[in-house]
Amino acid sequence: MTSATSSAYASLAGHFGRLAAMSNAIGILQWDSDAMMPTGAAPSRAESMALLRVLAHGMAVDPRIGDWLAEAEGEDGLGAWERASRREIRRVWTVETALPADLVEASSKAISASEMAWRQARADADFKALLPYLEEVLRLQREAGAAKGEKLGLSVYDALLNDYEPGGRSAKIDALFDDLAAFLPGFTQEALAAQARRPEPGPLDGPFPVEAQRQLGMKIMAALGYDFTRGRLDVSAHPFCGGADNDVRITTRYDDGDFSKALMGVIHETGHALYEQGRPGAYMGQPVSQARGMSLHESQSLIMEMQACRSREFLAFAAPLMREAFGGSGPGWEADALWRRYTRVERGFIRVDADEVTYPAHIILRYRLEKALIADAMPLSELPAAWNAGMQDLLGIVPPNDRLGCLQDIHWPSGGWGYFPTYTLGAMTAAQLFDAACRAEPDVLPGIARGDFSPLVGWLRANIHAQGSRYETDELLTRATGRPLDAGVFKAHLARRYLRA
Amino acid sequence: MTSATSSAYASLAGHFGRLAAMSNAIGILQWDSDAMMPTGAAPSRAESMALLRVLAHGMAVDPRIGDWLAEAEGEDGLGAWERASRREIRRVWTVETALPADLVEASSKAISASEMAWRQARADADFKALLPYLEEVLRLQREAGAAKGEKLGLSVYDALLNDYEPGGRSAKIDALFDDLAAFLPGFTQEALAAQARRPEPGPLDGPFPVEAQRQLGMKIMAALGYDFTRGRLDVSAHPFCGGADNDVRITTRYDDGDFSKALMGVIHETGHALYEQGRPGAYMGQPVSQARGMSLHESQSLIMEMQACRSREFLAFAAPLMREAFGGSGPGWEADALWRRYTRVERGFIRVDADEVTYPAHIILRYRLEKALIADAMPLSELPAAWNAGMQDLLGIVPPNDRLGCLQDIHWPSGGWGYFPTYTLGAMTAAQLFDAACRAEPDVLPGIARGDFSPLVGWLRANIHAQGSRYETDELLTRATGRPLDAGVFKAHLARRYLRA
Repeated sequence: MTSATSSAYASLAGHFGRLAAMSNAIGILQWDSDAMMPTGAAPSRAESMALLRVLAHGMAVDPRIGDWLAEAEGEDGLGAWERASRREIRRVWTVETALPADLVEASSKAISASEMAWRQARADADFKALLPYLEEVLRLQREAGAAKGEKLGLSVYDALLNDYEPGGRSAKIDALFDDLAAFLPGFTQEALAAQARRPEPGPLDGPFPVEAQRQLGMKIMAALGYDFTRGRLDVSAHPFCGGADNDVRITTRYDDGDFSKALMGVIHETGHALYEQGRPGAYMGQPVSQARGMSLHESQSLIMEMQACRSREFLAFAAPLMREAFGGSGPGWEADALWRRYTRVERGFIRVDADEVTYPAHIILRYRLEKALIADAMPLSELPAAWNAGMQDLLGIVPPNDRLGCLQDIHWPSGGWGYFPTYTLGAMTAAQLFDAACRAEPDVLPGIARGDFSPLVGWLRANIHAQGSRYETDELLTRATGRPLDAGVFKAHLARRYLRA
Repeated sequence: MTSATSSAYASLAGHFGRLAAMSNAIGILQWDSDAMMPTGAAPSRAESMALLRVLAHGMAVDPRIGDWLAEAEGEDGLGAWERASRREIRRVWTVETALPADLVEASSKAISASEMAWRQARADADFKALLPYLEEVLRLQREAGAAKGEKLGLSVYDALLNDYEPGGRSAKIDALFDDLAAFLPGFTQEALAAQARRPEPGPLDGPFPVEAQRQLGMKIMAALGYDFTRGRLDVSAHPFCGGADNDVRITTRYDDGDFSKALMGVIHETGHALYEQGRPGAYMGQPVSQARGMSLHESQSLIMEMQACRSREFLAFAAPLMREAFGGSGPGWEADALWRRYTRVERGFIRVDADEVTYPAHIILRYRLEKALIADAMPLSELPAAWNAGMQDLLGIVPPNDRLGCLQDIHWPSGGWGYFPTYTLGAMTAAQLFDAACRAEPDVLPGIARGDFSPLVGWLRANIHAQGSRYETDELLTRATGRPLDAGVFKAHLARRYLRA
């Protein structure tokens, strides 16, 4: 018997394989709930999901894991992947067992109530109606962060952040975001001025039939390297990438008056899906096969959506496909006009509608606020005023109501505290990785102009996707790009695209 | 505390509610496997399904069920539904716990191997290649039937039949099928002669675009009373009705050269779905809420497909919808010609392509053969010869090879022994129920001519669907039609439609 099949390590692998089989079932049912399920099935489905989640949680906190881990950690001679696998199981186990069951249950109930209240409060632009529910979620998040932080030796905020970004630290994010926050307001002014000197993109006459949009989307997905034998493209109210191991499904939503959003949405989710489809097959089901964290995951979607597919090279390739798909003709359909359309900069209130220049301001605002709220450095009742002041500072605009302000995102009401920074960490990581890929593979951009993404995807597959969670994020990024994350390449990318183009 | 919430009864209800939540999860994942799943996901999905099935089986044989049942069976004062619920739980528990675990596992493995061998053997028309695999399945089916029969006090065959048709007995089926077998050969001759005197249906020029077929199918489903808030229509290689409680999904497959098969397939599966959607909501999740058995289930699909929707009344309603859907014109599109098309009789080798006149011959053949094989009254090696002799006797035709003969169906290789008779029991039950509905509600047929199925469906809902498993099949049918099943109404229906029309 070789060391890799020692009884404790093999027991762990077998157990996590079964847990993956359960998680995969839950993943497909969640996809179905979001993309397929008829409305009347919701109550029955909720019972099925709750049952499977309880069973999965029971498997994740099975006390035998602790015993097996203790034994496996005494074993010598495991290979590098096995050692990383053991480390990731320890990480997952530590987090899963950090919370007492009554806190998990209280949190789950508070989040359900708060999500419900949020839907109404957002519709009514009535923050006060949400306040008591959000107070309770925040209180329980602090408690959860404290419990996890104690086991992990982290501050409350960093312990919450760790759920989404293992190894992430707010001290590092502070430095990165302060750098960006100093740069962006002035840069945005310059970018808007440069944009004003260029011609308008010109009109695209619709309608754009949904089926034609879907066919075009699938054509682009295939060009990006998406494997349709291990996934699907469907429709949902909120686009996402989900499903299961070897079954990575993405969704979009169509507007027959505007094809550009659905198409960029498909490209974004395809970036996520390529990461999922490229994870190490030999360790599928084990924690070490998982994507490294949310900032890396977001970097993969943004490499495709922002770095690759808002480039002039991509529009040179895609413009004829778009004209063919929709029978388009006229100046608005020229590659250059489409490029100007896809790189418009505009200050706005809503994060999900923001372009890549103004997006980080939305994130920095949320990150600073959630850190202060978790630290109890600001009463939650002051959130709307603090939000508006932050918008004024970072973007120079103030939302006319809280629906367009602090009520716009579901993250906080649904307990996603510590998640927001990964969006902009992802944008910076995307820039740094894309730059490294272009240096390592000179054919990346020329390939994109031909519709050949294999130089880019091949580099990402080898350097990121197939590495799973073998390395910590900093090490993974250093191995791929020569250094940990900094804001330099992202700033240079913005300057090149928005000032010099 | 009332008797209905006594601790033992309530414990049973709670446990079976959780088991239903698990079964619903499995049902949706099975639907996904058949209708949505990309091919590359099959191995991961098999692991998820196996895990959930093991968990569901563990819940179904939980020893506490036996204790709760013993206690609940001593309780007085339960209402009629609660008593039926308790009886059905005892029935399910007896069957679930009848088989030793090693027999379940051996059977599952033998079936997997045999299904694989069958696919190849059918393609090659090579029964000998299947023989050893099918021998093993048959041996284990006999063993399972013996184990169940011992607990239930039934013969081996009746114990297998009982899984699909609770309370069904081969002695009764023998009598019903002998009656039909004596009637059908001569009747088929007469029907073919009558058909030869009527004009041909005339051509329908295609193609028939899939989307137009789908829209027409959904229009008919809505007319039949299908609830789209608790179900869906999708595509799969083999049409079925599946899903979960309150989420009853049907599938079809389209041929753009012939819309008639997909449409009748949709109507057939809608009949199954109406039964599932109409089950008693107050007991959803409990065994007593389940459909009464496979012959009743098949009766509901055949009431729609054969009784209602191959009637002249239905074609009078549907012909304009068909012309509109496909832009059809000419004599082939007249209601009368469409009716002749939908009631063509033709002797053929393949069961699933058979019309309602010749279908029972296919079933009687299989029923007689599987009974002999289970009883070891005939060696399995003689199946092809016995099949061909039976086809000659019952239909007057002999298949040129075993692909068109005894290899055509997956039922036996996949362990479905005792299932076949429910198809023809269903056809007879459909005739008897439809006849009773028309007598009780004189507007049934006039309603169908207007596209109003509510008189029919209202009667079915009250008399069949909403009764779930409250009564045994014979009692349910007697309450609805005044007597247990006989072949009389079915024969009268065939005579009226095929000789006198």
